[in-house]
Amino acid sequence: MKKTAIIVAGGSGTRMKHELPKQFLLLYGVPVLMHTITCFYTYDRNLELIIALPKPYREYWKDLCAEHGFEINHAVVDGGLTRFDTVKNSLAAVQYKGLVAVHDGVRPLVSRAVIDRCFAVAAEKGIAIPCIPVSESLRVQNGDRSDPVDRTPYRLIQTPQVFRWEILQKAYEGEYLPEFTDDAGVVERAGFAITLVEGNPENIKITTPADLLIAEVLFKNNISR
Amino acid sequence: MKKTAIIVAGGSGTRMKHELPKQFLLLYGVPVLMHTITCFYTYDRNLELIIALPKPYREYWKDLCAEHGFEINHAVVDGGLTRFDTVKNSLAAVQYKGLVAVHDGVRPLVSRAVIDRCFAVAAEKGIAIPCIPVSESLRVQNGDRSDPVDRTPYRLIQTPQVFRWEILQKAYEGEYLPEFTDDAGVVERAGFAITLVEGNPENIKITTPADLLIAEVLFKNNISR
Repeated sequence: MKKTAIIVAGGSGTRMKHELPKQFLLLYGVPVLMHTITCFYTYDRNLELIIALPKPYREYWKDLCAEHGFEINHAVVDGGLTRFDTVKNSLAAVQYKGLVAVHDGVRPLVSRAVIDRCFAVAAEKGIAIPCIPVSESLRVQNGDRSDPVDRTPYRLIQTPQVFRWEILQKAYEGEYLPEFTDDAGVVERAGFAITLVEGNPENIKITTPADLLIAEVLFKNNISR
Repeated sequence: MKKTAIIVAGGSGTRMKHELPKQFLLLYGVPVLMHTITCFYTYDRNLELIIALPKPYREYWKDLCAEHGFEINHAVVDGGLTRFDTVKNSLAAVQYKGLVAVHDGVRPLVSRAVIDRCFAVAAEKGIAIPCIPVSESLRVQNGDRSDPVDRTPYRLIQTPQVFRWEILQKAYEGEYLPEFTDDAGVVERAGFAITLVEGNPENIKITTPADLLIAEVLFKNNISR
């Protein structure tokens, strides 16, 4: 089945102590987003790549690609006001209508094994969502009190979330709900059952300056490869 | 109120790809456990320090302290078979019977602000447990299916967990239960109510080689101080 990766980099990064959105910050000398794109390209050179960027950064990205000699072929679409809108815009640009991965642009440390596992399981089951176990004790807070929770069945959800195209397309025909935090939530609302697969713990989302340092040291040491 | 820190380093580290228990591995040239002890010592030089070590490593630790010129005064007690036994042994060695912090030896990145907050809140409320919010989407798995969970009220629990001495003492008079994952669970079983306080996200538990690299880069960049 043909494969597409939608890489969502539409955010403008209010949490970083930095003016530049975090997907453009340098990780080991190269913008984070280029690392992320490269993960998918090295996994499969025939993959269709669609990158959603904040509209004001289109030109900036073009210049950045020239500056870094970045030649991996990809389509660029405009990010929307919400992640939901961004994915919806990106879906409209998909040419291949086989399997579609949706991945956060600020997760440059996804392993090739996880990308492969997600596509393989989605081919068979329709939807594959990578996750990792919770390694700390877990509690649930309710006002002044809090209760312990058995962490064993809990999973922290990552990306790439991979879907058969028709499932994702159908799910995104529905209305936006503010409780959506990822694509799994969107397809589930549309009535589809998801399958969880094992992710890699290094596949962090870069949202703070500390995350960028962490990503750099993991990258340098080849931890996620 | 007088203060004690019990630093639990009784584990023998089966998860690290390394023979040496992780509390002894070098972080920026100094064993992890020395960093952890130093966090508490620099917070309050009059604090009573009790370190629980695996019995076979007592001599090794002594040599390590000599080698690194580590002169912070501390008592050493033997770790037990479980964390519960280790804390119980350590409690028996407490001289000050004021406030007692129990902290993981492999969490060298606890901030001074968090130590201070935990002691202050425990002085007032009896028990203070540091925690951080869940930043990823959360699901709960049940066999083949899984359900989305609103992550908002969930908290990941850290250490130092700080208690008035008499509360911790009373809680540890009870029997061991396999579901205990931390001291909060032990005191709660004894009927005490805990108070959650804000932790620092960099306060990671070093359990894998990647964690050690992460701790090193955070430490070098003074992220948690």
